[in-house]
Amino acid sequence: MAKVRLGIYGATGYTGFELLKLLQRHPQTELVFLTSESNAGARFSDVFACPFDYPLVSSESAPLDQIDVAFLCLPHGASMDWVRRVRQAGVRAIDLSADFRLTDPQEYRRWYKEEHKAPELLGEAVYGLTELRRDEIRTAGLVANPGCYPTTAILGLYPLVKQGLASGQVIVDAKSGVSGAGRSPSLKTHFVEAHDNFSPYNIGHVHRHIAEMEQELGRWGRPNLVRAAPLRVIFSPHLLPINQGILSTIYVQLPQPWTENELVSLYRETYAGERFIQILPPGQLATLRHTVYSNRVAISVTRPDDPSTLIVCVSEDNLIKGASGQALQNMNVMFGLEESLGLL
Amino acid sequence: MAKVRLGIYGATGYTGFELLKLLQRHPQTELVFLTSESNAGARFSDVFACPFDYPLVSSESAPLDQIDVAFLCLPHGASMDWVRRVRQAGVRAIDLSADFRLTDPQEYRRWYKEEHKAPELLGEAVYGLTELRRDEIRTAGLVANPGCYPTTAILGLYPLVKQGLASGQVIVDAKSGVSGAGRSPSLKTHFVEAHDNFSPYNIGHVHRHIAEMEQELGRWGRPNLVRAAPLRVIFSPHLLPINQGILSTIYVQLPQPWTENELVSLYRETYAGERFIQILPPGQLATLRHTVYSNRVAISVTRPDDPSTLIVCVSEDNLIKGASGQALQNMNVMFGLEESLGLL
Amino acid sequence: MAKVRLGIYGATGYTGFELLKLLQRHPQTELVFLTSESNAGARFSDVFACPFDYPLVSSESAPLDQIDVAFLCLPHGASMDWVRRVRQAGVRAIDLSADFRLTDPQEYRRWYKEEHKAPELLGEAVYGLTELRRDEIRTAGLVANPGCYPTTAILGLYPLVKQGLASGQVIVDAKSGVSGAGRSPSLKTHFVEAHDNFSPYNIGHVHRHIAEMEQELGRWGRPNLVRAAPLRVIFSPHLLPINQGILSTIYVQLPQPWTENELVSLYRETYAGERFIQILPPGQLATLRHTVYSNRVAISVTRPDDPSTLIVCVSEDNLIKGASGQALQNMNVMFGLEESLGLL
Amino acid sequence: MAKVRLGIYGATGYTGFELLKLLQRHPQTELVFLTSESNAGARFSDVFACPFDYPLVSSESAPLDQIDVAFLCLPHGASMDWVRRVRQAGVRAIDLSADFRLTDPQEYRRWYKEEHKAPELLGEAVYGLTELRRDEIRTAGLVANPGCYPTTAILGLYPLVKQGLASGQVIVDAKSGVSGAGRSPSLKTHFVEAHDNFSPYNIGHVHRHIAEMEQELGRWGRPNLVRAAPLRVIFSPHLLPINQGILSTIYVQLPQPWTENELVSLYRETYAGERFIQILPPGQLATLRHTVYSNRVAISVTRPDDPSTLIVCVSEDNLIKGASGQALQNMNVMFGLEESLGLL
Repeated sequence: MAKVRLGIYGATGYTGFELLKLLQRHPQTELVFLTSESNAGARFSDVFACPFDYPLVSSESAPLDQIDVAFLCLPHGASMDWVRRVRQAGVRAIDLSADFRLTDPQEYRRWYKEEHKAPELLGEAVYGLTELRRDEIRTAGLVANPGCYPTTAILGLYPLVKQGLASGQVIVDAKSGVSGAGRSPSLKTHFVEAHDNFSPYNIGHVHRHIAEMEQELGRWGRPNLVRAAPLRVIFSPHLLPINQGILSTIYVQLPQPWTENELVSLYRETYAGERFIQILPPGQLATLRHTVYSNRVAISVTRPDDPSTLIVCVSEDNLIKGASGQALQNMNVMFGLEESLGLL
Repeated sequence: MAKVRLGIYGATGYTGFELLKLLQRHPQTELVFLTSESNAGARFSDVFACPFDYPLVSSESAPLDQIDVAFLCLPHGASMDWVRRVRQAGVRAIDLSADFRLTDPQEYRRWYKEEHKAPELLGEAVYGLTELRRDEIRTAGLVANPGCYPTTAILGLYPLVKQGLASGQVIVDAKSGVSGAGRSPSLKTHFVEAHDNFSPYNIGHVHRHIAEMEQELGRWGRPNLVRAAPLRVIFSPHLLPINQGILSTIYVQLPQPWTENELVSLYRETYAGERFIQILPPGQLATLRHTVYSNRVAISVTRPDDPSTLIVCVSEDNLIKGASGQALQNMNVMFGLEESLGLL
Repeated sequence: MAKVRLGIYGATGYTGFELLKLLQRHPQTELVFLTSESNAGARFSDVFACPFDYPLVSSESAPLDQIDVAFLCLPHGASMDWVRRVRQAGVRAIDLSADFRLTDPQEYRRWYKEEHKAPELLGEAVYGLTELRRDEIRTAGLVANPGCYPTTAILGLYPLVKQGLASGQVIVDAKSGVSGAGRSPSLKTHFVEAHDNFSPYNIGHVHRHIAEMEQELGRWGRPNLVRAAPLRVIFSPHLLPINQGILSTIYVQLPQPWTENELVSLYRETYAGERFIQILPPGQLATLRHTVYSNRVAISVTRPDDPSTLIVCVSEDNLIKGASGQALQNMNVMFGLEESLGLL
Repeated sequence: MAKVRLGIYGATGYTGFELLKLLQRHPQTELVFLTSESNAGARFSDVFACPFDYPLVSSESAPLDQIDVAFLCLPHGASMDWVRRVRQAGVRAIDLSADFRLTDPQEYRRWYKEEHKAPELLGEAVYGLTELRRDEIRTAGLVANPGCYPTTAILGLYPLVKQGLASGQVIVDAKSGVSGAGRSPSLKTHFVEAHDNFSPYNIGHVHRHIAEMEQELGRWGRPNLVRAAPLRVIFSPHLLPINQGILSTIYVQLPQPWTENELVSLYRETYAGERFIQILPPGQLATLRHTVYSNRVAISVTRPDDPSTLIVCVSEDNLIKGASGQALQNMNVMFGLEESLGLL
């Protein structure tokens, strides 16, 4: 079987590096190029402490005609230009930026404070939460890879939303490692500032990932139910003094008195057969250790001793299932490969 | 002025060590004895990597008649026996365990699963949240030093409760460093297990500190208000991969549309003149860095763009304001000393 | 091609867990059993936060007749009994303990303070530093997998020793993550004690790994050279506040004025074609980041501006190349598989 | 007694912040101004998460005539200009930069690659290693506060050098927390790069702190001894994934067969009465935990089982005894105050 030929745009950030590490284990891919504007002409191993001795080229000089799929690890705003060129060349695209996650360009402007430059492509973009959109991803020309936080929130709430058990306001109290902030040095991500610290940021209803969460969860609501007001997400991200990993603690007001066991069953049925989703048994709680350095998501559900509150804990590795791992999972789906190739 | 003569029972845990470090800076105290059952006969510097070369004696052999005040850094259940002996000797006591925090022995049995062994002393015990109970502490024979988590939750909610702005259910999503779990090695606190990990535990309505929170917040409610149902606290503690520090992110449903500025003013007025409480200006969020290695508490309030939700972030050092620092603050109050002595 | 059937004795320590993670990516193995005395009857996922739902059995009940190779992740002293049984059953053995690393049972007694219980097997044991002993490993019935520290010291010094460039005393100042100390909780490995700390231990000429280093480096000395006194290793291990990784900074007095470039060439020629050994270019220094979470070793050589001193920095992941990864690498060699299977 | 009036130039780096924290506990000082060029006009609490609400002014506008002593926390090169102005105003100066540590301006040029701009002041500068130069510091107009690494190396070797027991080459394998690199964000100090990493840098004979070490140790050699060749320091600094603390592991070839006990006695006699130097008993090793967050230095000596090698471990907090704490200790000496004021 011919290998999938791929190129990575913006390869010298953390998601690019993570993708490269995963590709070492993937037997059905051929890496054609890596781009970096700031490091064009250097080798990848000049930029990261690693033995991956690939050349870095500028985006302009990358041989777009020689690949089957492009991974775009560029910042939002910059990514859409290249996605357009990739698509115009007839190449499939997996965009790790936020540029094609929101279906409505007005929403893009509202949250990202700029005009969308390729609105004509929004229609073909599929939100790449693999477990929920697998069939559409299979044939997609453009996959909008989900944000790291939304992957936890959506997977953690989807079984409830689909069942009509979540509506109104949910609180997502999330904690993320520092790699989520990227590789550009700043005071906030300076070692001495972040180490032994723990800090909330952009809490309330202001973080851009809320747009994805509300959009995607809205997709699965049950409009015929009386209680199906659209979900509103209060989202409080915090910075953990670690490199990789997100744990989201989600608070939901339940309209019906489901037991913990019933809820675990609901989650297990919803995600039956999903290799990368682990629903923990009652009494166990999801921790970062369950998922970091893997493409997995771990979910636990906890009912306090009252009839109405539910606490869902969801953990993932923000760079893998929250970014590059899910991107590779999507590539596997798009090219008819075993979905877990390179991801074990 | 005569120095305050003091003894520490159970000095070889983290709260004992922290207290000892603070006492080095306190000019008005004289350390008479340190007890340790497991290390009696050794020197303190044999037990911790430090130069504090004090002898450790058994509790039985400690000269209780030579001190003015005893600090009890013993486990709950064990502490109450020694508190009784201390009080019978006419010595004032500051108990860092949970034994005298709950006024109702039934509640003690409910949460701690054992009978209270000194219920006759519960009447004289004052819950030692210094800022809220200063007058009673001044003359108290027995101060029940607050738990680390409750100190954040109570100080963070008190201005709202007093004003009748919090009732019903509040969510306290708290994150604590590992020193809160004590110095006994266990798998949970093994370095390799806790490092780079982040894990929820005892979430919902099961952690024992909930009892203190609900009791003390109930004290300040306004029974004449219609909405003054007792507060119910959903409490989700998580283990941070750091040594010291607690950050509690608290979610409250507000009955009235106060602005962020009005709320900051309410907090500032409530805590006017309090040296150890810092109310952050609108737009800043409390982080661990604000308070770790100090006796301070930092509080921020955030209103999302909706009329009804409020997020209060509270940070402290769990070993200092959450334990030994507040104990020393209470001692200063009890003996008429400058409240910040040894605590800057 | 038939898969290699394997069993793991003592699977619930960190080396067992790491091996299990690597095996998920190995397409040519079949895991037949995992033993654990303390957790027999439980599932692996009860013991570690992971989805590996394998049963744990006692060593006695493990079907030794159904495997081709046994990995022994038992403590030294305990391992030799099981190695004997494994070998008596005609099964090949890879022993991750120290029991078969020293060829002389007197040396075993000297360093481990107990009698060797299976001295008759010492003759067939091959010290499994793959890159140096590959041919013997290919046909070995028993491979003594090297210690974590010795892997760095031996690989870092071997090119010099073989060339007759190191003799007399060398200093190995080594720094290791806490996982090297195993999974049993202790005060030394308690999170609060190890975090933000850095501590030397067993420094000088007392750590047991010195025996391996001196034995194996002695093997490659050139007896016809005048300067070929056996190497004496001053070894100073330190505990790093991280989970995985060893960096050894090695100081050698050079008898000849080789330049840095010449030395880099010597190292590159010595390890030409070795996939898991990366010799850094002049001016770059080996760091943990080069190797952690991989089976690689990174080596840098630095000449200060004097004719006689050389500094070699060697980094590895102590659980992978320093233990389970190298064990799997050895298994691949023993069974004629591609050496890097499961290790990328 | 009148308080010592002081100003801090360059107050918004880590040494400035640390000094400010220590001053909170110092009863005999009055803080007159804090300068910051980049943050002039702001408050200190805008720059650090802390409640220290001092105004920041530009250096030009600072009232130099109102202080008794200036602390200069400026970068080397920039500091000497301000030291000259401070001295011209008749104000005593404690310079935390490297500008006045080397007595020979040629050496300054050699190591710092630029001309010294105030060589006329070198004569009056006293190298401020308090324990070794106390008498000169008492009356000094200008104290050159030692570098963080040199403080450990000099204090660790001084007893040997003074006794004629160290000469020729010594190896200082040092490990430092990241705060030593300052507060300017860079890739090297980016959280994700430094966390869980451990990396050597500038190893061999190239780090600038070598100049101080060799100069000051040379001061104490015994020229009448045959073996008194000047000490040459091979210095290997490494970056630890922590904020504060330095541990130096020092290897010395001893000319005479002193026992470990004799060496401990030598160290204890040399530092008798020194409050901030702790010589550990035989068998204990210095760790970061002994000294971090204090002004102390802990020293252990270890003899391997051979007649000629000695290992000295020295630990300190790089920001306190290695910078701001020692600066304050020097100020106490300069103004006739109790040497430990503000430092317990």
